[in-house]
Amino acid sequence: MTPTYDPDNIFAKILRGEIPAHKVYEDAHTLAFMDVMPQGEGHTLVIPKAPSRGLLDAEPATLAALIASVQWVGRAVRKAFEADGLTVFQFNEPAGGQTVFHLHFHVIPRREGVPLKRHEGGMADNAVLAEHAARIRAALDEAA
Amino acid sequence: MTPTYDPDNIFAKILRGEIPAHKVYEDAHTLAFMDVMPQGEGHTLVIPKAPSRGLLDAEPATLAALIASVQWVGRAVRKAFEADGLTVFQFNEPAGGQTVFHLHFHVIPRREGVPLKRHEGGMADNAVLAEHAARIRAALDEAA
Repeated sequence: MTPTYDPDNIFAKILRGEIPAHKVYEDAHTLAFMDVMPQGEGHTLVIPKAPSRGLLDAEPATLAALIASVQWVGRAVRKAFEADGLTVFQFNEPAGGQTVFHLHFHVIPRREGVPLKRHEGGMADNAVLAEHAARIRAALDEAA
Repeated sequence: MTPTYDPDNIFAKILRGEIPAHKVYEDAHTLAFMDVMPQGEGHTLVIPKAPSRGLLDAEPATLAALIASVQWVGRAVRKAFEADGLTVFQFNEPAGGQTVFHLHFHVIPRREGVPLKRHEGGMADNAVLAEHAARIRAALDEAA
């Protein structure tokens, strides 16, 4: 597990505004946006702004801010999608399932009887992701 | 998603010492021990001592302490099993994959080409779990 951080990974580009994302939440230390290859409706990613490759090389303050945002976004995602549960994934290195090498948590709202789709199941429609992001932002606004 | 906490869940019993566990790490706020139905060699669980049902009802301080221990234990698990990666799961409510209703993170060391086993794949041998726990504790001692 090499802790090297590549500043040209796609999440770093999203953080720098070089490529677009369907953002749902942002604060001084974290950003949340829709996964473009969702494993379920409402699949959201939460990342730190600090350049961490994965769980193991992150600073303690980075992790504390990140997990707080995961909870905050998780509550909104649950509400926005009237979910029965939430599945949270955090993958490290290719063997661990990681495909973008900037630390991130997957937050996926779950409904009884609805299995997860494969992550490589294809790109979601942009209009659908925009509507889902708006729904989560509305839930966050109500909670604030 | 009901935030009710059942103080008779098995992790609460482990915390109270009423049932045994292969412990690998303990501090004032968290405990880590081997999953008895591992999805891979070295599958470790990290839990808070505070009575939280899942991610959404946990206190911010509980989450901050928990994720710090997940990182700390994750480093030791990676080292102890010479892992190529780590897979971290956190499940909420039955629809989200949760089977024990005390907040927990799964930390699973991963090797290239070795898929995860199903969680219900059966109880691991106690002697094997004891040896794995000792290996992780040794890695923690070296890191301390």
